[in-house]
Amino acid sequence: MINTIFLTGIAIFTLSSAYFYFRNRQSSRLNSAFLVSFVTLASYTLMWQGNLVGASASGQPIYWTRWIFYAISCSLLMLEIARVKQIKETGSVTELVFLNVIVMGTGLLAAVSTGAGRWIFFAISSIAYLIQISMVLKKEEAGWVNTYIYLGWTGFPIVFLLAPTGLEVFGAGLAMGLYLLLDVYTKIIFNLQLKE
Amino acid sequence: MINTIFLTGIAIFTLSSAYFYFRNRQSSRLNSAFLVSFVTLASYTLMWQGNLVGASASGQPIYWTRWIFYAISCSLLMLEIARVKQIKETGSVTELVFLNVIVMGTGLLAAVSTGAGRWIFFAISSIAYLIQISMVLKKEEAGWVNTYIYLGWTGFPIVFLLAPTGLEVFGAGLAMGLYLLLDVYTKIIFNLQLKE
Amino acid sequence: MINTIFLTGIAIFTLSSAYFYFRNRQSSRLNSAFLVSFVTLASYTLMWQGNLVGASASGQPIYWTRWIFYAISCSLLMLEIARVKQIKETGSVTELVFLNVIVMGTGLLAAVSTGAGRWIFFAISSIAYLIQISMVLKKEEAGWVNTYIYLGWTGFPIVFLLAPTGLEVFGAGLAMGLYLLLDVYTKIIFNLQLKE
Repeated sequence: MINTIFLTGIAIFTLSSAYFYFRNRQSSRLNSAFLVSFVTLASYTLMWQGNLVGASASGQPIYWTRWIFYAISCSLLMLEIARVKQIKETGSVTELVFLNVIVMGTGLLAAVSTGAGRWIFFAISSIAYLIQISMVLKKEEAGWVNTYIYLGWTGFPIVFLLAPTGLEVFGAGLAMGLYLLLDVYTKIIFNLQLKE
Repeated sequence: MINTIFLTGIAIFTLSSAYFYFRNRQSSRLNSAFLVSFVTLASYTLMWQGNLVGASASGQPIYWTRWIFYAISCSLLMLEIARVKQIKETGSVTELVFLNVIVMGTGLLAAVSTGAGRWIFFAISSIAYLIQISMVLKKEEAGWVNTYIYLGWTGFPIVFLLAPTGLEVFGAGLAMGLYLLLDVYTKIIFNLQLKE
Repeated sequence: MINTIFLTGIAIFTLSSAYFYFRNRQSSRLNSAFLVSFVTLASYTLMWQGNLVGASASGQPIYWTRWIFYAISCSLLMLEIARVKQIKETGSVTELVFLNVIVMGTGLLAAVSTGAGRWIFFAISSIAYLIQISMVLKKEEAGWVNTYIYLGWTGFPIVFLLAPTGLEVFGAGLAMGLYLLLDVYTKIIFNLQLKE
């Protein structure tokens, strides 16, 4: 079942990569929508391949490599969010990108850690995330982006917490399905909405 | 023999690092020529040392770490290529650098993978590469750079394909020799031509 | 004892993270002081947790992961140093950041290497460091930063050389204590002085 989810992810992000590439290829703006989908395609390929997979205490697989790819793709998304939110100061935009790298880097460390270390890294990652999104949410422009942050981005730490990376309320299969839904929402539907 | 190739690489890139450092040290421009050679020197040192080496199905060594260093050195080269090709929009330059990181990152994943995963990563890396160089080649300025891309940069995926990382038409020794020639052409001769 | 040092580091950098976050949160400048402390907090957490630790020939622990975090935190410090030293050309600032990544990346490789490779990487890292600080020291502005470089930054390669990563003049415990003192000076006291 997890394999099917990953193959579905590969298929979806192949299509969205092709779509965004051809839609935006004439623009001299950064083709962020394409790059985000393409990086996510590489991420699903690596998870499907099954190398570099950890295991939880109860033996559930932990696909920690996704957080490396999110460090790239979500930095690109953050540049777009800053643009529509009219966050223009170089210092603030740079800070949002650094915070994103910290969120994903310590998220990865939480995913591969056990015991107290896991929860400290989860706390560090969450604090960086809260600082990051509070910078975004306090801007009044483009109110629909706030909904996108609340429903989309915030879904990831919640799944992390309930999945084998956290409290193990549910297993890796459901976690991978929910992450795929969140990936489609945050990385494809968002970029479709941006155009409008 | 592979050891001799790596030692030759260390010697060549030590000399070119020193040359480019002293040639450009008074300039306030980014000393890209020096940094590219210096990063490549570190890459050859690591391969010569022989840690972090994989193996192909037939037991040939796979020096996958070189693709990490190319992510840095070729991003610097891309900045220079964009400059002489007069690609000035921040969005386009940023896209070229992101594409380079994707090309090298998925190239690394292709080098360490086996089975179908290897070919999917090779395809992803190749597509990113084709998108990247088509952005460069379509610009009419500095036509000699097109020759450099065709003969130099495109040599790397061809060697990758024929070496133990791909079809194993030839062994790791010849592959390392060809990569060294390509490294000298793309990272030293190119930077010497730039000055003229 | 090493554990106590790491826990002390966690406590100190938790407090400094909170302090710098609340001190600078209204500013639209990059909150570099906070990010530097926060990244260092993550680094100490990882070392305290004890995964990803190497060993010297004599069995002393080698905490090589700290150099990954320095690649981020010291790049941020370098941006601040460039600002107070009035190094404004984009080319020079970019070069300082690339050199910092090379210093820390090859420092990491020196830390995990044995034999001749260790010393070659130490030499590469030291040369990159000397080039980097010579760019900073030759600027006449903000003379107190020169003292900070001499006493603070230069302490790290000296400890590296005398610790189990180098000549093993002293053990990992003293090395970790000295690094903590240097971290407090270079990453907290410096940022407190900057404000004045």
